[in-house]
Amino acid sequence: MSVKLEFWFDFASTYSYLSATRIERMASDRGVDVDWQPFLLGPIFAAQGWNNSPFNLYPAKGRYMWRDMERLTAARGLPFERPKNFPQNSLQAARLALAIDVPEQRAAFSGAVFSAQFGSARDISEPQVLAECLESSGASREMLEHATDPRIKSALFQQVDRAKALGIFGAPSFVAGDELFWGDDRLGDAISHAATL
Amino acid sequence: MSVKLEFWFDFASTYSYLSATRIERMASDRGVDVDWQPFLLGPIFAAQGWNNSPFNLYPAKGRYMWRDMERLTAARGLPFERPKNFPQNSLQAARLALAIDVPEQRAAFSGAVFSAQFGSARDISEPQVLAECLESSGASREMLEHATDPRIKSALFQQVDRAKALGIFGAPSFVAGDELFWGDDRLGDAISHAATL
Repeated sequence: MSVKLEFWFDFASTYSYLSATRIERMASDRGVDVDWQPFLLGPIFAAQGWNNSPFNLYPAKGRYMWRDMERLTAARGLPFERPKNFPQNSLQAARLALAIDVPEQRAAFSGAVFSAQFGSARDISEPQVLAECLESSGASREMLEHATDPRIKSALFQQVDRAKALGIFGAPSFVAGDELFWGDDRLGDAISHAATL
Repeated sequence: MSVKLEFWFDFASTYSYLSATRIERMASDRGVDVDWQPFLLGPIFAAQGWNNSPFNLYPAKGRYMWRDMERLTAARGLPFERPKNFPQNSLQAARLALAIDVPEQRAAFSGAVFSAQFGSARDISEPQVLAECLESSGASREMLEHATDPRIKSALFQQVDRAKALGIFGAPSFVAGDELFWGDDRLGDAISHAATL
């Protein structure tokens, strides 16, 4: 059985885009399997007293983040187009990702959603965008129905509870064994740790 | 004339300790000079509505930071002992660092203060600790008087204003040309950018 690295992400998170574009390749090089775990930061931020992204609440931090993303995507040769609205509503995308049981399809769908949003500035709350992401990942666009499935809604609530229980306070986060790693900057460390388990 | 990289730090900042221990060596390898710029995060956090370190205000973030520091210092072979109080009062240390005009002495004093606090859990608001740091850096312990010098107090206020004007919202921060970099994780990028100027 191969080692699992849990990748916790919110689709609205800019730095999660950076990890989504490289985690499978980096993990595979070390013989580590990635377990894509969509969740919502909103309830976690709300518990901290924030009713918005910290990048909007704290303007200096926000200005810095956008410039940092420009530099990092340029250095990595990644497409980057700042979406008109931030943070986008990531609820439907998160539910759909959870509804997809096949790991490879979930990873492909999630990567497509991140690329649509931050690579092409598309609105990931639009059903048409999500339908395209489903199809490009090999899932069926009929999956869209699951976005309102009570079972899936409940599963997403449970994801947020699990994230809180793991001590997660931001995204992306990575869990390997008993260790939590936060931020795209720790992806390499997280994979190295997972590879030792 | 060699290129300057401004290193903005608050003595109470854990991640600034990480940068303080390696910035001179890393920068020197690339022909970059380091300009040590002490400031205080307190007034900047206060302007954001925080009356304490975010690592205390947001407990999950704080628990993570201490574990992250343990891992990083272990990986880099750095001494690390968590101080009893956090954040420590860094006011006197910041004033003294500013009062030291000789760049090499300011760097040595600052490094000694960080090591005393995070390497040996000593209290950097104690005059005895600061006196030892002054002496080990080649400055005189008579410099201690400058901690209450009105000219130095005023210079520290100006440092905080400059930090705000530069868009600084946390520490460590690095400024090279028109680019701001935040966090020990960006030290390498900051030096690489400085080296191109």
